[in-house]
Amino acid sequence: MPKLLILSRDADEYVERIRRAGLPELAITEQPSEADVVLGEPKLTRDALPGLASLRWVQCIFAGVEPLVDPSQRRDYILTNARGVFGELMSEYVFGYLLFHEKKMLERMAAQQAKQWQRPESGVLRGKTLGLLGVGSIGAHLAGTAKHFAMNVRGFTRATESCEKVDQYFHDDLLTFAEGLDYLVSVLPRTVDTDKLVDASLLKALPPHAVFVNVGRGNAVDEPALVAALEEGRLAAAVLDVFEKEPLPQDHPFWTTPNLYMTFHTSAISYPEDITGVFVENYKRYLEGKPLNYVVDFERGY
Amino acid sequence: MPKLLILSRDADEYVERIRRAGLPELAITEQPSEADVVLGEPKLTRDALPGLASLRWVQCIFAGVEPLVDPSQRRDYILTNARGVFGELMSEYVFGYLLFHEKKMLERMAAQQAKQWQRPESGVLRGKTLGLLGVGSIGAHLAGTAKHFAMNVRGFTRATESCEKVDQYFHDDLLTFAEGLDYLVSVLPRTVDTDKLVDASLLKALPPHAVFVNVGRGNAVDEPALVAALEEGRLAAAVLDVFEKEPLPQDHPFWTTPNLYMTFHTSAISYPEDITGVFVENYKRYLEGKPLNYVVDFERGY
Repeated sequence: MPKLLILSRDADEYVERIRRAGLPELAITEQPSEADVVLGEPKLTRDALPGLASLRWVQCIFAGVEPLVDPSQRRDYILTNARGVFGELMSEYVFGYLLFHEKKMLERMAAQQAKQWQRPESGVLRGKTLGLLGVGSIGAHLAGTAKHFAMNVRGFTRATESCEKVDQYFHDDLLTFAEGLDYLVSVLPRTVDTDKLVDASLLKALPPHAVFVNVGRGNAVDEPALVAALEEGRLAAAVLDVFEKEPLPQDHPFWTTPNLYMTFHTSAISYPEDITGVFVENYKRYLEGKPLNYVVDFERGY
Repeated sequence: MPKLLILSRDADEYVERIRRAGLPELAITEQPSEADVVLGEPKLTRDALPGLASLRWVQCIFAGVEPLVDPSQRRDYILTNARGVFGELMSEYVFGYLLFHEKKMLERMAAQQAKQWQRPESGVLRGKTLGLLGVGSIGAHLAGTAKHFAMNVRGFTRATESCEKVDQYFHDDLLTFAEGLDYLVSVLPRTVDTDKLVDASLLKALPPHAVFVNVGRGNAVDEPALVAALEEGRLAAAVLDVFEKEPLPQDHPFWTTPNLYMTFHTSAISYPEDITGVFVENYKRYLEGKPLNYVVDFERGY
């Protein structure tokens, strides 16, 4: 009988939801040593790894699994992450900010406060070009929303071209990919290959009216280069939800960089109602000895 | 040979686009008396009506045609309005503001300015319920965007139930329609039937976390009742693009009403590139003697 350990701040809710799912043969345990299955946050799970004597499978409740794929950690178990659930939330976030920018909301609020009937012309998403750095399950969802808004979509990926919502794929030439983009959105995971992909040369290849959004991981951005681009007006705006170092240090130049909108790693929340579905499906596969969904490649890092 | 008079601030652009479309038999004139066809803004066209001695058809470049359906005006011609082109723009506007509200953008900007790494939980559109007052071509497009964001959609219409993106239709009981709505969006045209439809009782039927958006016409709103609802916190927010009186008078209470976001009749702009397509299609029908698209019922007013 599989024994499940839950390592999350939302453990009580997970217990209730999993009980309600009525999974066969499953026992929930609080003893790390006897658990063969873990449903958990990556950091809590990493900290528990040494005591997980019977571990066979970890279902991570986040998409990002950095603490668990760190080379210093054991890899003698199957690691799966959460996919297919964050795309909707990411779309709400990304397109919310793109529309905030295009509709000149701050300018309109200022006109209202000044009691001025002003009608600055809005920008539109329709017909604009969105470039996605990374087209996994989140990128694919963003591409779908972009097509709903009648946009053109470019995708930059390592090799895959599986999302049909992407109009044009690029794999090598980042600068050609960036040329003429209206919006550049990174959903890249943190890996050695994604380090500082958004650097001075990529930022220079973007038109000055472009907006950069990062909802992937902070390592993908050369932060001083982004500050320079914004300060010199070579980029219209940037929206960042993730940073090289989190929480953002108090003396970081981002706090005072113009046309930079920051949110603090909240673009997609891990909701137990979503993740329980991922776990339940994977648990059934686990019981039946089928290959699990969303297996992480420890070497690749996602 | 049909003679076309163009009455728009964008007349030069229309002339160029229509010439480029190479329409058969069409002459463009600047003589009102010889024009049988007018492509025009409603107010400019109304002012020209007395001199339009040969008038047979007016293609309005807006959706709203109030000046032309006023009972004091002649009705001895076919009036068509612009449809099918504003839905995309309206969706960008409406969902931009809904996301602005749900993602707590102002709160996050304040945290950034205070250099505080704060993570207030965002609301989500997914799973929420949108109520549409009016489901014509614009309402149908909004319904489609709502479904893209995995929302529930209710539609309040006079009788039609033609949009399949609407989950549930209502025709009589406005208060039942309003019950439990997360967002109420009016796209109603100005007619005698839509006067003050959004009144104190409808606003009271909405939950206090609800947001009201008006991108239709200002007459649909009992403005003092909306001020009271916002001031008493019985409504989370309102977003208004249209008003009973435009421009909004300087002494109007809206200028200082809390949680009210105003834009000034800019939610959907009439772009010559869009409207030319509507005109070209209708001109071909006109030439062939076919029924025109988007004929306005003078009595009904839309």
